[in-house]
Amino acid sequence: MEERGNISIHTENIFPIIKKFLYSDHEIFLRELVSNAVDATQKIKRLSSIGEYKGDLGELKVKVTVDKDAKTITISDNGIGMTAEEIKKYINQIAFSGATEFVERFKDSGDQDQIIGQFGLGFYSAFMVAERVEIVTKSYQDGAEAARWECDGSTEFSITTAERAERGSDVILHVAQDSEEFLETARIRTILDKYCKFLPVPVEFEGETINNPNPIWTKQPSELKDEDYKEFYKELYPFSEAPLFWIHLNVDYPFNLTGILYFPKLKNDFEVQRNKIQLYSRQVFITDEVKDVVPEFLMLLHGVIDSPDIPLNVSRSFLQADSSVKKINTYITKKVADKLAEIFRKDRETFEKNWDDISVFVKYGMLSDDKFYEKAKDFVLLQNTEGKYYTLEEYKALVQANQTNKSDQLVLLYTTDADKQHAFVEAAQNRSYDVLKLDSVIDSHFIGLLEQKLEKTTLKRVDSETVDKLIEKDETKESVLNDTEKEELKKVYEEAINNKNMTVDVAPMSPDDAPVVITLPEFMRRMKDMNRAGGGGMMFMGDMPDTYNVTINANHPLNQRVLKAEEKGKLARQAFDLALLSQNMLSGAALTSFVKRSFDLITKE
Amino acid sequence: MEERGNISIHTENIFPIIKKFLYSDHEIFLRELVSNAVDATQKIKRLSSIGEYKGDLGELKVKVTVDKDAKTITISDNGIGMTAEEIKKYINQIAFSGATEFVERFKDSGDQDQIIGQFGLGFYSAFMVAERVEIVTKSYQDGAEAARWECDGSTEFSITTAERAERGSDVILHVAQDSEEFLETARIRTILDKYCKFLPVPVEFEGETINNPNPIWTKQPSELKDEDYKEFYKELYPFSEAPLFWIHLNVDYPFNLTGILYFPKLKNDFEVQRNKIQLYSRQVFITDEVKDVVPEFLMLLHGVIDSPDIPLNVSRSFLQADSSVKKINTYITKKVADKLAEIFRKDRETFEKNWDDISVFVKYGMLSDDKFYEKAKDFVLLQNTEGKYYTLEEYKALVQANQTNKSDQLVLLYTTDADKQHAFVEAAQNRSYDVLKLDSVIDSHFIGLLEQKLEKTTLKRVDSETVDKLIEKDETKESVLNDTEKEELKKVYEEAINNKNMTVDVAPMSPDDAPVVITLPEFMRRMKDMNRAGGGGMMFMGDMPDTYNVTINANHPLNQRVLKAEEKGKLARQAFDLALLSQNMLSGAALTSFVKRSFDLITKE
Repeated sequence: MEERGNISIHTENIFPIIKKFLYSDHEIFLRELVSNAVDATQKIKRLSSIGEYKGDLGELKVKVTVDKDAKTITISDNGIGMTAEEIKKYINQIAFSGATEFVERFKDSGDQDQIIGQFGLGFYSAFMVAERVEIVTKSYQDGAEAARWECDGSTEFSITTAERAERGSDVILHVAQDSEEFLETARIRTILDKYCKFLPVPVEFEGETINNPNPIWTKQPSELKDEDYKEFYKELYPFSEAPLFWIHLNVDYPFNLTGILYFPKLKNDFEVQRNKIQLYSRQVFITDEVKDVVPEFLMLLHGVIDSPDIPLNVSRSFLQADSSVKKINTYITKKVADKLAEIFRKDRETFEKNWDDISVFVKYGMLSDDKFYEKAKDFVLLQNTEGKYYTLEEYKALVQANQTNKSDQLVLLYTTDADKQHAFVEAAQNRSYDVLKLDSVIDSHFIGLLEQKLEKTTLKRVDSETVDKLIEKDETKESVLNDTEKEELKKVYEEAINNKNMTVDVAPMSPDDAPVVITLPEFMRRMKDMNRAGGGGMMFMGDMPDTYNVTINANHPLNQRVLKAEEKGKLARQAFDLALLSQNMLSGAALTSFVKRSFDLITKE
Repeated sequence: MEERGNISIHTENIFPIIKKFLYSDHEIFLRELVSNAVDATQKIKRLSSIGEYKGDLGELKVKVTVDKDAKTITISDNGIGMTAEEIKKYINQIAFSGATEFVERFKDSGDQDQIIGQFGLGFYSAFMVAERVEIVTKSYQDGAEAARWECDGSTEFSITTAERAERGSDVILHVAQDSEEFLETARIRTILDKYCKFLPVPVEFEGETINNPNPIWTKQPSELKDEDYKEFYKELYPFSEAPLFWIHLNVDYPFNLTGILYFPKLKNDFEVQRNKIQLYSRQVFITDEVKDVVPEFLMLLHGVIDSPDIPLNVSRSFLQADSSVKKINTYITKKVADKLAEIFRKDRETFEKNWDDISVFVKYGMLSDDKFYEKAKDFVLLQNTEGKYYTLEEYKALVQANQTNKSDQLVLLYTTDADKQHAFVEAAQNRSYDVLKLDSVIDSHFIGLLEQKLEKTTLKRVDSETVDKLIEKDETKESVLNDTEKEELKKVYEEAINNKNMTVDVAPMSPDDAPVVITLPEFMRRMKDMNRAGGGGMMFMGDMPDTYNVTINANHPLNQRVLKAEEKGKLARQAFDLALLSQNMLSGAALTSFVKRSFDLITKE
């Protein structure tokens, strides 16, 4: 036995799926119907341009009307219209040739010029909100008769002749009871504003044109001035500050993509700033969740992207991992890098002025994309505590002579909080060392990246060692105290501190340095930071207390006094408390009691 | 003219959409085909139980095999199987009766017993990854002949006779070149583990059963012990600490829902903890994005929910705003509140021990859901700085006598950081006031809620006023200084402080209170906090500097000394610096210089 045949679909079975289950969001019906109406006007325009239609085009437009009493929403256009025959062909029989065209359209951008057939699969989304749909339509063709199509959501329809003076179509939705929210004009306005704001033909609602048919991304960069970009930004984000700068995207091959990406002035709350890029397909708004199209590090940018080449499934969510999506991703990354390089080259002053706002993008990009790193390494800036900016090369040249240690490693010093680590920054500056500000969340990762990419270079936080040891050189300091005295001093302090997480060490330092210095070793701190950030496996470390080094300056006169004092321990404790203060580690009850002691001291003096 | 007719769908047009565009995620094919196989085994079981099938059921199971050389994936079952006639009916002709059933299934949970037809719309997802699909199947019916169906993804198929000894079906996918990733067994195992982990029939892969066919949520609570719940939690989240407690959901009417929700031990990073609830439909994994099904404040819970009544669209993402979703939402909220109330009532010790972990849920719930507030107000706990817990009623009883002010308002004192605000907490405690710890992010909103709900009650942060003014009573303090002296003292301090954001005031306080106290008014701080949190409109406030009150204690001996001292300003400045220290406001260069001065002081002493 062998039998061949064709798979067939029973309309009455698939129809309810299309009507109710294809889209998760019912408001989509309006996008679909208005887009269809716009397509109809585009088609008559095209027919006119190739000489197929010789009549007057008139002012092409789409009109949306809500009649709350009659419970209808009407979408009217003066596009190509349809004859009764065409309705039968395109709405009834072939309904889903529209669907195939839909698929094709998103597969291959070549055939955007298909002229016939006003309706695609999207038309049936009308039944998500309507219990009955009418189409009254009149074809552009000479002598065409108007026709009315009607369907109550079953698979049965009727066609009759109708009255319509002008070319075009009205789609009349008789809104179902459970969808009466869509009879509120405020609701309709919101939906139009979301999906139809930049459709290429005027869309009229309540006597006003609600869209901008010629948004600037459809124009050539050469036609546009800075003001145009700024105004468009305001149109998109009415309450935002002016953007820093922007990139006009415009590519035809190997995919079609236009758009404008803006670098916003960043506020503190990154989350709020996300999802500000809007994705369009031929000026129809699709979504503002672009995470698969735009590289993650650029998600903080604002603006619009318009591409018919981004593959969508029926409900217009993305097909992930598609190769053209990857290409678009790469293209956008490259454009952003080139733009930043250009601004850096042409106008370094502006670049520096905006650095604080763009450094997150740049560093994030360098960390997540090697190609971006290669471009950005020439314009990424380091800022020191004096507020001056340097490129990597410039900074290396600046500090090389003074900050190379005895193992020929360049040591870059940084602070994560110039205020809290002030005493350490000052101590380093007294040695003529330069200190970088690396104080944002991303900097801890950026530091690792720099060490990995730059040869023979280490970064150290300014409070990770006493200033003598930050950059070890071939020098030995004489000690005023002999070994027995040092040993005794160590004991005094250990007893006064009485904390097993404080490792006490006595070392000769300059008498101008502090008598007691508390440091937190770089390696230990980084491991714990990584751990806190949720990184890899070493869970136990997060729970371990910090282990600090306490260095007692053998050459400071205070410590000679400690050795001779009657109440050695009390003096040592006070000195230690002051060192804790310098490291912002004196708090709670200990701080309250320190403050009280000090008030008493100056009251009695 | 009137014409009636039927809308018809051309299979060759809709077919590509179903194959490629229905699902955004290709791996779904395996979920669909394994679910179909499971359904087939469930059906034979049912037929057997009603006496329609009299043969031996055997060990019902599904087997998945990958043959990398032949480039096939095979899904085999020993379910009902199909005759050639049934194939023609269900795969070819009626294909989409499956689809309607699918719709119906999610619309109305009544008819889960439909017996015939193995395949639904999901079957066609096979063509997302396969260039050719074969089905070899043999019906359970006596004397049935095995049949082979074959289709290359066009709408043409062939049916021939085949060899198959036992009842059941093999679905053989000949994997297309662009989908060869699915020939990796590791990939298949990951997909099975994601979607099929709790399917009700054993699923075998590489000689192992990869699923648990009887997960505990399908059992009755009375059959289960604490250990069972804990073990299941471990099965779901192998690396997590044991949960605090759990709720077994089990409802038949007005919707069908089972599941287990766990209260996890909360880690710091809330984000990581989200999306831990898995949604199933008849033991088939659907998604872990449950944000529309579970109230937002319960998104931090972990566990599983299984409901055939959650409406899904074709690609099984939710239909938002559906009324049964709202009912489910309400049900879950109620169950959670009841469970918490029960634990509180039956085992307050455990409740208190876990309070820190659950307080975020409870407070968030009270803020976002009025019904939850009404239930939770009896068990929400307040913790004071001594670590004791009180209900709202208990706490009111505790502090009413001592903390009611002269306007008959109850004043609750709180600290947002017992360590940083230690001096102020201590001062309040010296007055026998009680101080609450309200230190989490949500507490700033919770404070507002309490003030709104509790009558004649105000909350004040402990450092918002000097301790005398926190709770104003009808007492007047005598001043040691006369008005002229007070005026002079004020001037001395104003000059020493020299900061327009510090408002200086001289007031008689206890000589035991601090000589200088810096406070940040409650109202001002709240406005700025709200502003920082991104709230409403008053953008300018965020940029304004904090304005502090500096209160000089007229009765403290230090201030009498200031008036007589030679270097009045220097002494006042030192006293002010110490007050800054108490408020954690001495930092950076000012702190460094304070520490240096103090080192000098003890060196020279």
